[in-house]
Parts: sequence; C-alpha cells; structure tokens
Amino acid sequence: MSVLVVGSMALDTVRTPYGTIRDGLGGSATYFSGAASFFTRVQMVGVVGSDFPEEHVDFLRARRVDVSGLHRLPGKTFRWSGGYADDMNEATTLKTELNVFHDFRPELSAAHRRAGFVFLANIDPDLQRAVVDQIHNPFVVALDTMNYWIESKPASLKRALKRVHILFINEGEARLLARENNLFKAVRILLSMGPSTVVLKRAAYGALLFQRDGLFWVPAYPLQTVRDPTGAGDSFAGGFMGYVSRRRELSPGRLRRAVVYGSIMASFCVEDFSLNRMKKVTPAEIQERYRRFRELTRF
Amino acid sequence: MSVLVVGSMALDTVRTPYGTIRDGLGGSATYFSGAASFFTRVQMVGVVGSDFPEEHVDFLRARRVDVSGLHRLPGKTFRWSGGYADDMNEATTLKTELNVFHDFRPELSAAHRRAGFVFLANIDPDLQRAVVDQIHNPFVVALDTMNYWIESKPASLKRALKRVHILFINEGEARLLARENNLFKAVRILLSMGPSTVVLKRAAYGALLFQRDGLFWVPAYPLQTVRDPTGAGDSFAGGFMGYVSRRRELSPGRLRRAVVYGSIMASFCVEDFSLNRMKKVTPAEIQERYRRFRELTRF
Repeated sequence: MSVLVVGSMALDTVRTPYGTIRDGLGGSATYFSGAASFFTRVQMVGVVGSDFPEEHVDFLRARRVDVSGLHRLPGKTFRWSGGYADDMNEATTLKTELNVFHDFRPELSAAHRRAGFVFLANIDPDLQRAVVDQIHNPFVVALDTMNYWIESKPASLKRALKRVHILFINEGEARLLARENNLFKAVRILLSMGPSTVVLKRAAYGALLFQRDGLFWVPAYPLQTVRDPTGAGDSFAGGFMGYVSRRRELSPGRLRRAVVYGSIMASFCVEDFSLNRMKKVTPAEIQERYRRFRELTRF
Repeated sequence: MSVLVVGSMALDTVRTPYGTIRDGLGGSATYFSGAASFFTRVQMVGVVGSDFPEEHVDFLRARRVDVSGLHRLPGKTFRWSGGYADDMNEATTLKTELNVFHDFRPELSAAHRRAGFVFLANIDPDLQRAVVDQIHNPFVVALDTMNYWIESKPASLKRALKRVHILFINEGEARLLARENNLFKAVRILLSMGPSTVVLKRAAYGALLFQRDGLFWVPAYPLQTVRDPTGAGDSFAGGFMGYVSRRRELSPGRLRRAVVYGSIMASFCVEDFSLNRMKKVTPAEIQERYRRFRELTRF
C-alpha cells in the first residue's frame, strides 16, 4: 500500500540555541514524506519554485517517494523563518513568505485519486476539502491543522473534519477547537466532530491516542540533544501514517504501534536541523528505539 | 515496615475554577500521610497550632497514622492561601503565614529515630539535614524540595542531597538545581549530587523515574475533572514511598510500580479540594486505576 500527502514544501531559516540553518529543506509534506518513506511508498503532492534545489528532490527520489505530484512553478519557493528559545517548546515565527505556495491548488493525478491512505498536512481547510473531494474511496483520511485555521476558518475546518478519520492536533489547538480546557473533555468533543481517532501531540511530553472506547499514552523518546524541533509533528504523522498504511486494518493494537513509530520518527527529526538526521536513519535504529520504548514504559 | 514523614501541616485557603475552600486540611506531611496510609504504617512528625481542628487528627488516626510526633503549640497553624487559573498548571500564592511552623525544629522520639524509610517533605534543607542526623540507620531517605530552597539555600540543599537516596523534584526545579536546560542532562547532574534515584514530577504530564542505568515513564491518570491540584506532589510521594516501604528491597521493578502507585494517589488527590477525595478512596479503586495504567501504556 502507499500513503498520499498533500502539504507544503519549504526552504526554512531556523535559529535555535544550537545554531542557525539558512534555506534548509523543510515543509510539512517534506518532513512527512521523509518519515513515512521508512514504512511505505509515499505519494507527495506539493509545489516549489524555480529556486528549489534539485538535490532535495533527488533525496526524496532516493527514499522512493513518488514525486510526480510535485509541481515546480516560476517564482520563489515558500519560505519560513523562525526560532526557538532555550526551552525549545514553542516556535517564534519571524517571517512567512508564501511565494508560489500562495496559489497552491492541488490537482491530483488519476493515480493519486485512487489513494487508500491520505494525509492532509496543515494547510487551508478549503484546500484540504478540495483534496478529499478528488479522492475516490479513501480507506483512511488524516488531517493536521493549527491555531491559525482554527481561528480564521473554523466552519471550513469543521466541514473538513466530518470527512476525516484521524485528527492530528496539539494540546492548545485541541482546547481552542473544542472550547474546553479539560483535555479529556476537549478530545471527546473533537471525536463528536467526525474523526474516530484523535492523536494528541504534546511535543517533549509525548502523545496520546484517543478512540471512542480507548486511550493510549506514549512518552517522547528521551533525548540528550534536541537541536531543532521544526518538523517534529509532521515527522510524527509520517511515522504514524507510514506504519498504518501498510495494511487496510485499523485495529487498536496497530494504532498503538503507529503512535510509537510516530514518536520514534519525531525523535530522529529533532536531533538535527532540517531533515539532516532523517537522511541518516537506518531501519535498525528505528527498531532499536522501538525496543527502548517498550523498556521505558513496561511495569 | 513503616515510613516516617517530616513536613508541614497546614490550613489552606484555595480558589480554583471549581470553587473555593477556606482553612481546609493541607500541608505536605498531611497529603503524604493520607496517601501513604493505604500502603503502610505512617509515622508523622509536624506541628500545628491550638486552632487546628481535632477532627483532622481523628482522620489521620483513623487511617492508622502514628500521630505521636504531631506537636501542638500555642498559636496559629501554618496557613497557605493561593489559587489556580483555568489551565490548573501552576499555583499562585496569595499569602503564606508560617505561624507555629516558623519555629519548627523537629525532635524525633526514640522510636522514630529507628525509622527505615524517611520522607523529608519540602521544608528548609537545614531542617531536612537535622532530621537525617537523628535517624540511626535509615534504609531509604527521600527528599522533596522547591525553587525557593534551591535559590535561597543551594549549599545546604546540596549537603542534604549527599545523604539522600531518592529525590522528588519537578521539571523546572530540576533545570534550576542542575543549571542545565536539557532535562535528561539535568537529571544526570542531579544523580551525581547524591541520590541514586530521581523521580521527576510533571503534573498533568506524568512522571519519570531515573536511575543511573534505567529510565521509566508513567503518564498522569486521565481525569475528566481536576478540581484542585494542591497536594498532588505530596500525594504522589506518599503513594510512592508507602508502596516502597513495604519491603526492604529497591529493585527496579518495585520502583517502577511505586511510580505507578504515586501517580494513582496524585490522581485521587486532585479530584477534589483538600483531602476530601482521599478520605473516600478504597483499595479496590486503587487497584482499578493500577489496571487502567497498564491498559493505558501497553503496546
């Protein structure tokens, strides 16, 4: 099986206490694809400008990512620049230049419309719905979003959620979208909006998997060095969806293991800037961290 | 076996989004004793004023707590008043009146000096050391502290830590005491200060158990209602030390289970004001939450 991702491709300038990277490879679709590619074949839909270095596309090809949905338009690639203070908890955005991403209107190819597993990365909910409209009969649609869309387009986002099986969201966003401070009550409200599964991302505090009748909690992988948290959420989603899309089966046990694989891929992501660590990951390292997760939580 | 606790006994006035309690039973030694009493016999050392309601002492006696070390002095009981905003994450102190606690100089009885398990609740590190000095041959000494002591008496605290086996500390305090932002590096530094075990409390995010060669992560019990977080840390320590002090054995497996029991007792604590929920807990409820913790974390 394979997983289709629609999202941003970017050149990021990021400053953290560990250094600065200028115009490094970034974007939600990119991080997702890098992570998911360790588990399944990825079909990537996105847009870049004429300045996007070909070596980045070569990297994705080398990871056997289908880049036929990657459009190159005249103009500049989407750019984000931001930074993190000492605690690395929250990104401060310095500048966002949409550039060619401003007119991104994903048109899926005939092959992509037959996708069984779909990840709608954090983009305008109008676009997320336009993508779902084009897919014939998806087995799983997953969606990520952010404060900006919850505040600016709540109605569109709620319409999108009705067509979604899995929602990836962080703690503050969950409270904002549900208008409820207690996390467990908030997630119940989100589950009534459409998704049958909510994956709550908590950065350094791990993640929670909610279904109507079950709850699973996974820690973040303990790291001595976190150099750049950019892309952690999308790498998490990539590990999760990559694992899930290997089989048309959504059993609770499979979803639990998917959360663990998501956490593992996020842990590699934050160990270095951009996808630099992801580029070096081996399947053996993934399995080693999986074993460590078991050791970390058993009693 | 039994566990000896030295700490504060207080009358707390607390305001949370769920209501207000005035002069409710509180204090670190009280919460600790209430929680630990479900697992073992507790010897409590503390001081109250002439205004301390006898019904609170009756409650402790009913939980088979040895209150022979509870001194009643002329004057008013230690009072704390504070509150929590919507997110319930951090207490804001409005007023602290030390009253009789100002001159608290714990003098242990001959029986208490033979204690095998000792919990030094969050008090002046000079007093914590004075307590350890009096104990003949403790098997386990555990200590809790806070920002105030880390900042005002770091040298005394560090001397105390050399004589401690288990340190209970929260995330911000760990970073402050170790002067290191990365949590895992910070805990390594704390482990070099004396304790062989560090229990990192993370409130709604659970707890971490660190030993030189192992790490265990436990979630917070998922609660739909958190009415008052006051006393959660001491209830956690009470569940932990109560379980640990049942046997003179500190195996990794026992310490892991102790963290789970600590989390369980903290979860009961925060469900209502003061020790109101703790007063109604049954052993069957504790075992049910233990079972739920397994379900919450297995994969």
